Amino acid sequence: MVGQIKRFLVGKPIATEHQHHERLSRITALAVFSSDALSSVAYATEAILSILILAGSAALGLALPVAGGIAVLLVVVAFSYRQTIRAYPKGGGGYIVARENLGDIYGLIAAGALLIDYVLTVAVSISAGVAAITSLASTWGAPWVGGYAVEIGLVCILLVTLANLRGVKESGAIFAVPTYVFIASVMALVIYGVTRDMLFGAQPVEHLLPPEIPSTGEAIGLWLVLRAFAAGCTALTGIEAISDGVPAFKVPESKNAASTLTWMVGILVSMFLGITWLSHAHSAIPNELTHETVLSQIARTTFGNGTIYFVIQVATALILVLAANTAYADFPRLASFLSRDRFLPRQFSSRGDRLVFSNGILALGLFSALLVVIFQANEIAMLPLYAIGVFISFTLSQAGMVRHHFHVKDVGWRQGAMINSLGTLLTAVVLVVLTVTKFTHGAWAVMILIPMLVLLFTSINKHYNSVARQLSLEGANRPIALRRHTSIVLVSGIHRGVLPALQYARSISPDNVMAVYVDLDPDQTERLRQRWIDWGCDVPLVVLESPYRSLITPLFNYIQEVDARYNDHVLTVVLPEFVPAHWWEHMLHNQTGILIKATLMFNKGVVVTSVPYHLER
Amino acid sequence: MVGQIKRFLVGKPIATEHQHHERLSRITALAVFSSDALSSVAYATEAILSILILAGSAALGLALPVAGGIAVLLVVVAFSYRQTIRAYPKGGGGYIVARENLGDIYGLIAAGALLIDYVLTVAVSISAGVAAITSLASTWGAPWVGGYAVEIGLVCILLVTLANLRGVKESGAIFAVPTYVFIASVMALVIYGVTRDMLFGAQPVEHLLPPEIPSTGEAIGLWLVLRAFAAGCTALTGIEAISDGVPAFKVPESKNAASTLTWMVGILVSMFLGITWLSHAHSAIPNELTHETVLSQIARTTFGNGTIYFVIQVATALILVLAANTAYADFPRLASFLSRDRFLPRQFSSRGDRLVFSNGILALGLFSALLVVIFQANEIAMLPLYAIGVFISFTLSQAGMVRHHFHVKDVGWRQGAMINSLGTLLTAVVLVVLTVTKFTHGAWAVMILIPMLVLLFTSINKHYNSVARQLSLEGANRPIALRRHTSIVLVSGIHRGVLPALQYARSISPDNVMAVYVDLDPDQTERLRQRWIDWGCDVPLVVLESPYRSLITPLFNYIQEVDARYNDHVLTVVLPEFVPAHWWEHMLHNQTGILIKATLMFNKGVVVTSVPYHLER
Repeated sequence: MVGQIKRFLVGKPIATEHQHHERLSRITALAVFSSDALSSVAYATEAILSILILAGSAALGLALPVAGGIAVLLVVVAFSYRQTIRAYPKGGGGYIVARENLGDIYGLIAAGALLIDYVLTVAVSISAGVAAITSLASTWGAPWVGGYAVEIGLVCILLVTLANLRGVKESGAIFAVPTYVFIASVMALVIYGVTRDMLFGAQPVEHLLPPEIPSTGEAIGLWLVLRAFAAGCTALTGIEAISDGVPAFKVPESKNAASTLTWMVGILVSMFLGITWLSHAHSAIPNELTHETVLSQIARTTFGNGTIYFVIQVATALILVLAANTAYADFPRLASFLSRDRFLPRQFSSRGDRLVFSNGILALGLFSALLVVIFQANEIAMLPLYAIGVFISFTLSQAGMVRHHFHVKDVGWRQGAMINSLGTLLTAVVLVVLTVTKFTHGAWAVMILIPMLVLLFTSINKHYNSVARQLSLEGANRPIALRRHTSIVLVSGIHRGVLPALQYARSISPDNVMAVYVDLDPDQTERLRQRWIDWGCDVPLVVLESPYRSLITPLFNYIQEVDARYNDHVLTVVLPEFVPAHWWEHMLHNQTGILIKATLMFNKGVVVTSVPYHLER
Repeated sequence: MVGQIKRFLVGKPIATEHQHHERLSRITALAVFSSDALSSVAYATEAILSILILAGSAALGLALPVAGGIAVLLVVVAFSYRQTIRAYPKGGGGYIVARENLGDIYGLIAAGALLIDYVLTVAVSISAGVAAITSLASTWGAPWVGGYAVEIGLVCILLVTLANLRGVKESGAIFAVPTYVFIASVMALVIYGVTRDMLFGAQPVEHLLPPEIPSTGEAIGLWLVLRAFAAGCTALTGIEAISDGVPAFKVPESKNAASTLTWMVGILVSMFLGITWLSHAHSAIPNELTHETVLSQIARTTFGNGTIYFVIQVATALILVLAANTAYADFPRLASFLSRDRFLPRQFSSRGDRLVFSNGILALGLFSALLVVIFQANEIAMLPLYAIGVFISFTLSQAGMVRHHFHVKDVGWRQGAMINSLGTLLTAVVLVVLTVTKFTHGAWAVMILIPMLVLLFTSINKHYNSVARQLSLEGANRPIALRRHTSIVLVSGIHRGVLPALQYARSISPDNVMAVYVDLDPDQTERLRQRWIDWGCDVPLVVLESPYRSLITPLFNYIQEVDARYNDHVLTVVLPEFVPAHWWEHMLHNQTGILIKATLMFNKGVVVTSVPYHLER
């Protein structure tokens, strides 16, 4: 039954031979790899404004210079990553580049940071997508939809998880349509809006409910600018995606990937700056009461409540879901790399029925659902935790590239090293800014979690390595020695169920079989002893006292005693096992067999054998 | 660790030899057995008033005649049960008497009805006890305590459950003090209150918040009286307790038990009629707003808000907890009888560490906690479900006694049969009244649940009987035949972990061992094949194809094939099992062994053997 439900949800298993890799043209590759990066324009401007507003409306004018600074950073990081794409045509994620060039520990730090960030990508993107829909709903007169934000978010995560467990083919069409609709509609908004506002002047946004301007009395100064800058850095999340996926491009892979990256960053910078300019022109600010997004405010002020506004909101929601979906490719893949390198449990590297890394997908779905519940699907509240992981990975990966250039000394390595050094420096500075400004707002949790993850990775690695050493066949004999056997059959009474067990025990140790019974009730024990004699079974019956009515303890003690007595024998404990005709009848029979097996497993040198007796009806 | 927590909560195990039975004098027996019956005066009057008030204040005058009718019923049932006490000196609960005299089905109906009623006893008594405390709290200016009624109720159930898992000795002192304090204080209230009111006239109750008199416009008539009567019948719950526990009395058991029963009913009738008289004299009515109990209203009007009022409220709460505690003796005992007779799973008849029927105690705690949550600790709302079970048991048990008299024809059997016939008739009529008047208010649920329970009992019985027949040794051979063996060793690679398994397999079937490997990854498989040859192991390696990367399916198919090929052999599947040095390392190794064992268990004639390999570090 469980199997049928699973089949219905995730589909029939797929044979290994059907594994294949589609090569992507630049047009489709842009759609597949850019959703995470491009979708961040849906919340990056709002994140900046939500910090600046703490110092009152006057501070909102700083949004554009802050966004400009972030745009510069974006361009530098993009150039840095073009180097990585050239150097690692087989895919160079932060973990691989940092580990190869800087050593295990740095690789693991990058990996831990990235795993955390992938979970946040799902939680933030899904929450922002839900916000796009609830903004649309409240503009169209259904503000009650906003009350179900958490539930809608969880359903979305469930659907994306199931889709990934089924195995989403990285087919262009699914990704291309919403991504290009999003790019086209947002670019239309930016171009039309900016042109019109410049020519005719801009209308301020009409809020459904007037937003509250907080009067925290924050001063306008460097600290505020740095915090706003840190908040806006979420716009950089996802731009590393192309460098991970170079092998998916058509030949020449590196060249195509690099030019796709340039295109992506160009579009991203235009949209981000345009939206920030528009939000300033229309005095759009985050609205705590209606939860309407800044993008929705601009879009409906520019185009009215009609079709174009609807298209922008739905395309925003869809590209955000695709962004979450990207993490569903990245997280399980990184987990499988870690698992293959023995830093995570083996289960993360085995492909499920549908050829996907099911365990990684499930883990990601679970953790991100947890975050959505904890933060009540409020993506702005999650942002302080976000982006730190990505910047750790940026810094380590760029630093690794600098090392790589000095090591390999390829053509043009000096220029490359310069670019990557600049990238390292800038991202490191930003990382410090992020950590300092966001620390008390939740970043501390990430800073604690990363070393804990690294510790976990190294402990797991130590264990697997120790096991591998212990299991090495060096100096081991071949399995030839035949040994003498002793068998203990645990009986619960005299009935047909124990016959096959006694028979089996006699066949493996003809001279040394004991039937053991634990005395839980003196009357029954006496009756059993008598019936055993009457029955005429020549296997000796050993009755164990059990003053505390425990089955396990006396049995365990007796087994150790016998084990010591026949030191050179192999001791086999034979358990007669009832197999009822129907599975639900299992609970009508004592589950002590399972307990006994679990206990005996820790007893060295004792072999446990289950001899089934099948009930017919 | 789990073990340590358990030790802390329920204490050290107790040896079987320490099982003992204290014999009770009449004074302590009254305290031990009467808490359930006597405590019902805390809510029975209120139950009557809460029905009458539906027809307005004028109808409240009917409370006293209704209570008088119930008192008559109480006396008749008590006389009926004196017969049972004489006939069943070893204890005659409804299940035993009905089953012995009327047959299995009637016994099971009585048993199902009683199990439901015991769960309700706990839920109702705990909720009423909490109501006594919250009434006290709101009189003393802390009405907010009432907001935590459900939480307080659940904590009480948890404590009573834990106390019973530890094993409460039926020691007189614990029971005697609150019971006699309750009897003394309520009798003082009744005697002082009635005397004073007769001499000086009664003051009406001053409510903290004025109660709402519902204007449902119910007519004063037979239907209302019958409903009020049915509601008051909860006063009868628990009077069967003494007949269950005759063996606990000092010799002569039956005589002592019978006279204790008479005393108990005398006290119960006096208190019940007295409280009802007082509630009428003081115009006490259920107050939906303050949730103050009627008993609390009378007590503070009679004695003021001082010490005596405090004592009455606390004694009421304590005797109600003791009443719940009574069900913790009755439910597990009845469940163990049913289990012993093969109508419930065997687990209910095994005594836990502390000599108590732990599974029954846990089941009772769980179900009653569920009821408290569902009904939000409102005992008046639960009453429509209550009492029906007890009256089914009364009727069946009395009918069984009539049959018993005719069968045994003991001294004075004609008189006994007459008394029991009257009892049967009256309780049967009341049962019909209860069912009809309460049906739409929740009694339907009980009427559906009882046949479902009976069906469950008989299905379980059928299964156990079928198993017993199948396991009968009749016609079975003695375990002498030695058979030929084939072994399959499942290998996951070439390492030390598989050595003991191969060795074991060779020792039980020297000529017929196969090592089986499931091909999940063609590269690894090729490497293993080569290493197997290099290693020079003479056990043949069989590689199974697995196009869908499943371990189970190919293995399962192969085993069936081998089983068919060597039809006269015993087929043993040997699983090498890693045993890590620390329990938490288990999850780092594939848990497929457990899955394989579970799957193979349903395969007829295949023996599964686990050969452990213990890791050192």
